[in-house]
Amino acid sequence: MTETSRTLVKNLSALEDGPVTVSGWVDTVRDQKKVQFVVLRDESGAVQLVNPRTDDTAEVAETISGLAQGSFVTVTGELKHDERVKLGGIEVKLASLEVVTAAIPETPIAADSGIDKRMDWRFLDLRRPEQNLVFRVQTTLEHAWRTYWVEHDFIEIHTPKLMASASESRAELFEVEYFETKAYLSQSPQFFKQMAQPAGFGKVFEVGPAFRADPSFTSRHATEFTSVDAEISWISSHEDVMQLHEELMVAGLRAVKEKHGEEIKALFDVDIEVPTQPFPRIPLAEAKRIVAERGYVVPRDDDDMDPEGERQIAAYVKETYGHDFVFLTDYAASIRPFYHMRNAADETITNSYDLVYNGVEISTGAQREHRVDVLIEQAKEKGLDPEELGFYLDFFRYGVPPHGGFGMGLSRVLMLMLHQTNLREVVYLFRGPTRLTP
Amino acid sequence: MTETSRTLVKNLSALEDGPVTVSGWVDTVRDQKKVQFVVLRDESGAVQLVNPRTDDTAEVAETISGLAQGSFVTVTGELKHDERVKLGGIEVKLASLEVVTAAIPETPIAADSGIDKRMDWRFLDLRRPEQNLVFRVQTTLEHAWRTYWVEHDFIEIHTPKLMASASESRAELFEVEYFETKAYLSQSPQFFKQMAQPAGFGKVFEVGPAFRADPSFTSRHATEFTSVDAEISWISSHEDVMQLHEELMVAGLRAVKEKHGEEIKALFDVDIEVPTQPFPRIPLAEAKRIVAERGYVVPRDDDDMDPEGERQIAAYVKETYGHDFVFLTDYAASIRPFYHMRNAADETITNSYDLVYNGVEISTGAQREHRVDVLIEQAKEKGLDPEELGFYLDFFRYGVPPHGGFGMGLSRVLMLMLHQTNLREVVYLFRGPTRLTP
Repeated sequence: MTETSRTLVKNLSALEDGPVTVSGWVDTVRDQKKVQFVVLRDESGAVQLVNPRTDDTAEVAETISGLAQGSFVTVTGELKHDERVKLGGIEVKLASLEVVTAAIPETPIAADSGIDKRMDWRFLDLRRPEQNLVFRVQTTLEHAWRTYWVEHDFIEIHTPKLMASASESRAELFEVEYFETKAYLSQSPQFFKQMAQPAGFGKVFEVGPAFRADPSFTSRHATEFTSVDAEISWISSHEDVMQLHEELMVAGLRAVKEKHGEEIKALFDVDIEVPTQPFPRIPLAEAKRIVAERGYVVPRDDDDMDPEGERQIAAYVKETYGHDFVFLTDYAASIRPFYHMRNAADETITNSYDLVYNGVEISTGAQREHRVDVLIEQAKEKGLDPEELGFYLDFFRYGVPPHGGFGMGLSRVLMLMLHQTNLREVVYLFRGPTRLTP
Repeated sequence: MTETSRTLVKNLSALEDGPVTVSGWVDTVRDQKKVQFVVLRDESGAVQLVNPRTDDTAEVAETISGLAQGSFVTVTGELKHDERVKLGGIEVKLASLEVVTAAIPETPIAADSGIDKRMDWRFLDLRRPEQNLVFRVQTTLEHAWRTYWVEHDFIEIHTPKLMASASESRAELFEVEYFETKAYLSQSPQFFKQMAQPAGFGKVFEVGPAFRADPSFTSRHATEFTSVDAEISWISSHEDVMQLHEELMVAGLRAVKEKHGEEIKALFDVDIEVPTQPFPRIPLAEAKRIVAERGYVVPRDDDDMDPEGERQIAAYVKETYGHDFVFLTDYAASIRPFYHMRNAADETITNSYDLVYNGVEISTGAQREHRVDVLIEQAKEKGLDPEELGFYLDFFRYGVPPHGGFGMGLSRVLMLMLHQTNLREVVYLFRGPTRLTP
């Protein structure tokens, strides 16, 4: 790919003094009597432009005086290394400045604007270096995962998001007008990634959107989110899934630390830690005892954890093992979907887990029930109609290997990695019950 | 990741004779008086199992006699290299055979089943080695593209598929019940990938679903498809986009040829060709003249090509330049969306192109109009209401760099690469006007 003649800002400091062309947008202007300073930003960084006012530079000076913040410009000038310049020890003495697109002078958001206002103007909010970094980290994280998968012979699938029926629960389903009938938006690729198992694909992954008509307004839910899914054949138990899962998290965090560690420290004051393997594993019942000993009694009687319980057990794990991750295992069958396999020795618990990262659940994984008669019984127990599940149950009637996998929220991982408290800060364009724009 | 103790079939031939464990499904059984043969298949290949009938092997023999095709089994036995065995020159003499899940004996599809029937039983259809290969090729192709993008500092984005309004045309829009209001499914990430430009992201890519409520039944349309999108800042013209595009195609095809070339030749009788650069570029008006000289007059008076015209110009390019690709350029403004930039010297044509591969259009690319006043005029000309486009037009009011990009159908590329005549053969689960299952 031929780059245009511009130099990326991040590459300037490695150049020798001399003529350069840089393109980007105007971050700030300091228009002084004897000299003008412009901070120019592009996707890679910021650089100071300087224009001493003389008769020769009067034309450029006039343009700068009229520059609205945010305007996109292309400049040429002389690069000069100068240790006194705070911004990277370099500056560009302007020779020419072309305004490519002038911004209108109003700036609808400011540094202290609330999250809702900033979401209204997300494309301006994303110009902040922290936001730009979030999505470069996302890119690196996903690529590390995919590289791991590809190197381990996984097949990438794209499952349909339009379905004739619910994938799991009818409760949080979006309905679509589909020609003469109705369709539903996929809540997860669960059924379709499982389909790859009787199809003989062995190991599959998908990164794609999932939709939940969840009317709740929390800092960590969205009606549309990016789901990271894997499913593998011939496992012995959910332990095999957990091993895959922890290797992926290690690969992802290692790549992020290597490529962005310093910048994350500078902009978010966060030290990215590459976790050690194996991650701690704690059966849920034991986790509840530990949490109770710390003085917190989970206010649920359905054998599940709650968010505060997750934070407490994560704090315990951090104190005890120095680890940011913990697998909570052995969830009760009563609170797990019908397709989770039950423990052979204790029918009341499942071969499943949740993965908690920095105190918040990011994923659920499990071995799946692949014996169709057992599966039908478990569906009935949950009040589901096997007739309606017909197409799914067929996957198990013509031969299927033992299998399991997990689904994980991409943005949750990013949110927790970068110590953000709101999912909205790490999603390109958030979707919630009252948020469909921009 | 710990693999289970099984050996993948593809790895058997490199092993020395000795004990092995293999897992997979039963492809065929030949149950003879003195010896039984089973062809076992897994995600990596097929191997012959042999069981000479003796008193010692009677138990295994009985199991094999009752084996339904498609059952998933785990076997142990002695690997033996034997040149006389047609299937890879190896066989496994059985010691044990465990039926993990028995298939029901009916096989709902056969080798000669029609495409609709095979789609009903897609998970069985996908067991065919050709189908398995399609998705391994897809995996390699996408990973080669993403690796190119990541190495060239692109940012990966996930744009929302739920929108408050149409992205382009109201005509082919799916409507979603969204709490108290309506939402629409994204027809393309067009507006949102453009948003990354004023956001200062520089270069972005996305691979994700797109939805078109197109009621037509052709061999190359679907109501849901995987769209491959890129958008880059600071281009001089659509030529920069075409250069990016051809480098991606070369990177993708090179990776596919290297990893799967021989297998594609064996299963599809197709020689994957890595194209040379630059790809031929032909302005549309010239393409129509060339096609007319070949005796085909495009039966349209709107300056567009038609599918037969695309085949004809592709045939001309193949004969003349020996090339599988051709960029058709300079499409008339009358048949392009309002956001395509017009040619500065001739307002009637756009800075846009279509990419034709093996005779079929796989992509449209263009430089975008980034001057908001011009953009508004062009929208009005197309009968669009600038009010309704408000959120999109805002992207251009606060500064934006010149930019352009393309959108490409993933499955179309695969279909044409593997010389398939129907998109349904290369889509994991096809969605059409009357197809929402499985």
